[in-house]
Amino acid sequence: MPISETWLLPDGVADVLPEQAQIIERLRRQALDFLAQRGYQLVYTPFIEYLESLSSLSALNHDLDLVTFKIIDQISGRLLGVRADMTPQVARIDAHVRPIAGVARYCYAGTILHTKPQGLTASRAPLQLGAELYGHDSLDADLEMIDTMLGVLAVAGYQQGLHLDLGHVGLFRSLVKLAGLSKDQELALSDLYQRKALPELKDYTAQLAFGADFYELGRLSGDLQSLITALSPQTLQDADFNYALDSLQTAIAQIQIRWPQVQVGIDVVELRSYHYHTGLMFAVYAPNHAMPLAQGGRYDGIGEHFGRARPATGFSCDLYKLVADQYKDVELIVAPAGREQQLQTEISTLREQGHHVIQLLGEDQLTSVPQATHQLRYTEQGWKVEKI
Amino acid sequence: MPISETWLLPDGVADVLPEQAQIIERLRRQALDFLAQRGYQLVYTPFIEYLESLSSLSALNHDLDLVTFKIIDQISGRLLGVRADMTPQVARIDAHVRPIAGVARYCYAGTILHTKPQGLTASRAPLQLGAELYGHDSLDADLEMIDTMLGVLAVAGYQQGLHLDLGHVGLFRSLVKLAGLSKDQELALSDLYQRKALPELKDYTAQLAFGADFYELGRLSGDLQSLITALSPQTLQDADFNYALDSLQTAIAQIQIRWPQVQVGIDVVELRSYHYHTGLMFAVYAPNHAMPLAQGGRYDGIGEHFGRARPATGFSCDLYKLVADQYKDVELIVAPAGREQQLQTEISTLREQGHHVIQLLGEDQLTSVPQATHQLRYTEQGWKVEKI
Repeated sequence: MPISETWLLPDGVADVLPEQAQIIERLRRQALDFLAQRGYQLVYTPFIEYLESLSSLSALNHDLDLVTFKIIDQISGRLLGVRADMTPQVARIDAHVRPIAGVARYCYAGTILHTKPQGLTASRAPLQLGAELYGHDSLDADLEMIDTMLGVLAVAGYQQGLHLDLGHVGLFRSLVKLAGLSKDQELALSDLYQRKALPELKDYTAQLAFGADFYELGRLSGDLQSLITALSPQTLQDADFNYALDSLQTAIAQIQIRWPQVQVGIDVVELRSYHYHTGLMFAVYAPNHAMPLAQGGRYDGIGEHFGRARPATGFSCDLYKLVADQYKDVELIVAPAGREQQLQTEISTLREQGHHVIQLLGEDQLTSVPQATHQLRYTEQGWKVEKI
Repeated sequence: MPISETWLLPDGVADVLPEQAQIIERLRRQALDFLAQRGYQLVYTPFIEYLESLSSLSALNHDLDLVTFKIIDQISGRLLGVRADMTPQVARIDAHVRPIAGVARYCYAGTILHTKPQGLTASRAPLQLGAELYGHDSLDADLEMIDTMLGVLAVAGYQQGLHLDLGHVGLFRSLVKLAGLSKDQELALSDLYQRKALPELKDYTAQLAFGADFYELGRLSGDLQSLITALSPQTLQDADFNYALDSLQTAIAQIQIRWPQVQVGIDVVELRSYHYHTGLMFAVYAPNHAMPLAQGGRYDGIGEHFGRARPATGFSCDLYKLVADQYKDVELIVAPAGREQQLQTEISTLREQGHHVIQLLGEDQLTSVPQATHQLRYTEQGWKVEKI
């Protein structure tokens, strides 16, 4: 979320002032132009819809339903939802409003609202930019989407140091089918994987058909070669499992060729949006960021709710998050003069974290640095960086 | 509102499909660039705010409060409003978030939501674009704003045939003060003016101090020269009345010089946003349109709610409305073959209204015109144009 004075505003909502708005506006245009050049056609989706239209995904993804603001339509008396994700809206367009034959490519950029912040980010009003590709279930479509996502990030200035995480729900899903697990067992396993709870996973899988394979899937989720060695021949020969494994391996190889500077990692039990995705999933991270810059994956059948189930893959990102690093360039912290060890350590730590810090000289006051945005100040809780 | 398939969507809300989105996106960029060149700095305002922040205007303008969607903030438990107008938000920024000395110029473009359609337009989700100028109470600032508004319309392709309506609340307001009217009398008069109810106005004003002047103000609201001749010397010599009259006359003269192709009309009792505006008011119309393309005016003191009352003037428009005429270029109505008088009249009328109409020849069917968007069809209610 952009830095700005926010005390008058609700949590996770901010004004975007001219200095920042200019940067975001430029990126918005560049990213949409980049997508247009690749044949992704711009759509503007409505800010409110009947809740049942928005819930094409929320039936599958309870989290989305929880973050959707609901309001009563004073005209129809029906329940409206404020868009919390534009993907279900574009799916509605592809399935119902503009049901073209063959491949459809759409892109969009707009504010979405969340009742509560998602993940570790503070924003409840991301500026969501994304692209969707309908009508093709090939790995080529998945690769185009990853390529497009990395291209948008390159436009935003992220050329180096990116980390791409790849997953494929097909490995787990085909193994569940092979082992004939119940829905409860499937959910329990998914939960253990999410929590990376290996000892519990070992105990739990001991009683399951294909238990050793389920355990290895969790234990070696990031090391495909070791995983292949560890799995049973029956699992490896399963057609669905094999297809998923092959897709993942081909995707890794292709991305390494196209984007040699991007570090590729895998996690075959990364199931954060397991109920929603149906194939290859991807998330891209900037260095030292816990939350992804952009993410996406395959979610075939999303349009079923609107009468037309089609293969689909897409990605989205928050433009505010993409420019967050650029704001840092104009941040300037001013520290007081002084040679105390604790102050010196604070300044060094801030600089190591990438902040720009000026220490005042001699008798200079804060006003001597008009471009300062923050000050380092000693408070009852120790040294604190405060906005000026 | 753009033409699109809407049955799945709430009334007054629409998808904007690629063909239309491209036109709107282009105009959005051109208009914002035009405003930037004139020093109007872009801000993005939050989609939701605490209701009391949004209500800086709604205290004055009950209509705005009525069209604002309200939702409960699940974090603070407080009432949020979805922005129904971006002007109060920009006023908050000028007064509180970025309280610069001297003149501040801001522009913005974004979706606003209304609980019910405003006026005769069907849209509940206009794409509001506007500009605001704070910190200058001169007529120069008013003229810059009118100039800027007409400039944005020129960018949108409106070069010819525009009609500009000018008003000034100062005439009525100063006369009310001079006559020492009560608030009830003031509201009653304002209502009679709005309804253009001349006989009632005559009866009502007969009992008022300066009654003849109040009546003439309504009767000659569109004819400044006749009005001046008809008014009492005491009114004409009142300093506030004179200032308002002089502002209006100077504005008319200046606009006629700068925009000779724009037809200027006046209405000194056009008080649609009387409680909100404080000076010169303006609205611009395309030929044969009942609702304005863009409108604005002076609303000094709007920032008072946020602790800083400053002179202010601004305008706004709905980008969807500005491009509505451009959609018509791609609209094509197909009429059935036939020589009946009634059908011929229907076709002529549609063409006179500016629609493009093809009449089928011989045995041709609708499918012979693949670019057709609408058909003229005989129904139980007579001839109707229907979307194909």
